[in-house]
Amino acid sequence: MELWYTEKQTENYGITAKIKRSLATEETPYQKLDMLETEEFGNMLTLDGMVMTTERDEFVYHEMVAHVPLFTHPHPKHVLVVGGGDGGVIREVVKHPEVEKVTLVEIDGSVIEHSKKFLPTIASAFDDPKVEVIVGDGFMHIAESREAYDVIMVDSTEPVGPAVKLFEKGFYEGLSRALKEDGLFIAQTDNPWFKADLIRQVYSDVKEIFPITRLYTANVPTYPSGLWTFTMGSKKHDPLEVNEARFHDIETKYYTKALHKAAFVLPKFVEDLTK
Amino acid sequence: MELWYTEKQTENYGITAKIKRSLATEETPYQKLDMLETEEFGNMLTLDGMVMTTERDEFVYHEMVAHVPLFTHPHPKHVLVVGGGDGGVIREVVKHPEVEKVTLVEIDGSVIEHSKKFLPTIASAFDDPKVEVIVGDGFMHIAESREAYDVIMVDSTEPVGPAVKLFEKGFYEGLSRALKEDGLFIAQTDNPWFKADLIRQVYSDVKEIFPITRLYTANVPTYPSGLWTFTMGSKKHDPLEVNEARFHDIETKYYTKALHKAAFVLPKFVEDLTK
Repeated sequence: MELWYTEKQTENYGITAKIKRSLATEETPYQKLDMLETEEFGNMLTLDGMVMTTERDEFVYHEMVAHVPLFTHPHPKHVLVVGGGDGGVIREVVKHPEVEKVTLVEIDGSVIEHSKKFLPTIASAFDDPKVEVIVGDGFMHIAESREAYDVIMVDSTEPVGPAVKLFEKGFYEGLSRALKEDGLFIAQTDNPWFKADLIRQVYSDVKEIFPITRLYTANVPTYPSGLWTFTMGSKKHDPLEVNEARFHDIETKYYTKALHKAAFVLPKFVEDLTK
Repeated sequence: MELWYTEKQTENYGITAKIKRSLATEETPYQKLDMLETEEFGNMLTLDGMVMTTERDEFVYHEMVAHVPLFTHPHPKHVLVVGGGDGGVIREVVKHPEVEKVTLVEIDGSVIEHSKKFLPTIASAFDDPKVEVIVGDGFMHIAESREAYDVIMVDSTEPVGPAVKLFEKGFYEGLSRALKEDGLFIAQTDNPWFKADLIRQVYSDVKEIFPITRLYTANVPTYPSGLWTFTMGSKKHDPLEVNEARFHDIETKYYTKALHKAAFVLPKFVEDLTK
């Protein structure tokens, strides 16, 4: 018997991956969680049938979520991660000595538990003394926070299920209030091939709230189209004007100092979504 | 009934696309050719079961094959395209007024005929007066050419079937002989996620022959991993030191003047393949 996982990334297009076995499957209060052992990408976490992360390509997304904002902000002491229950983003965040505390607010405790068990190289920082974990609603946490964070990273699912409200303008207004006076946030904002309207809307909403709005991309093979976007809203610090002295050596497999700026140079059809 | 095309991009991973209908299928003397009408990507050409091009995302590959070398060389008068029977590369090449002649050598005449019929927006330049079409063996054409071309673009299939010898060191030596004293070439060199060894080998081979060797990438959703590489070998002109005055306005959907250089800024694991 052969088992193949297929994700319809659109109604008419998708990826398919051969599976050694299903490691876990659960209907959590928020979503359908599956942990699969794949032949090509190692262990893979899916939520509602969509690939969240795989052992093989996870480094791209997690590095680009964490290091771009952390090298942009000159003193990122307190960091908030909304979502990110697999632990990959906080693993990257704690590599930065300037960070004194990183708070992770994940709505679904099952994601954390399954990641600790089946994705140990990703979920490796939960016991770090800098890390505070809150199992709760990130949207509400943001709504209740005032000038609390230097950097916020929104590591959500795609805009279905519990993550829908994380793509609405009211949420970005909340992010602005939750950030300190020179704070900045980044959010994953899906792909430009199948979700162009979403990117255009988010960018436009963020631009109305934050003085500096930027879009950057990275290649994640198991995400739709392979080209992922991240939107940054910043009150003061511009990722394109980072002082070279800010960069320090850090162990990465995707992010580099040169890529920090090059990732913001967009293909024309993507750049057009920001105009 | 639903028809789905599935390409196993590796033994254990692939893409799948819903098909409206099969437009043509043929066993040519060189390969199995299929033209499919897909729901998501428009008409799609496959050779030996591998996606070559689709109406929706073709612009990325064709623009990045053509414009990066043509804006690098200061006077690209005579251009050779090896392969490229769908016509997408020559469509981009003839946008450059400096180009006086572009010779296309495609081994499989069926690719040209089917592209003219089913991919008319891609195969739109075959009647351009600058274009010369030779149905023949690109490898032999290169072997017989001496200081004939300013720029050569190797738009081959992946290294199976007739394209195997286009990835061997002897071929790159032939390219060097076929180029004028300040000539340069680029070749598509597959993806770094599943074909890292190939990229490392090609880069190393080219570097032994050409004083300037560079690798750049672009995002093509329907190609394995979504991240495609191109290797450039140049006798004199460096794509990273293009005189700004060289750029002129050109209608594109992916390539931009800023991306010309940013495309050479590689993710660390890709950069490592060049060391």
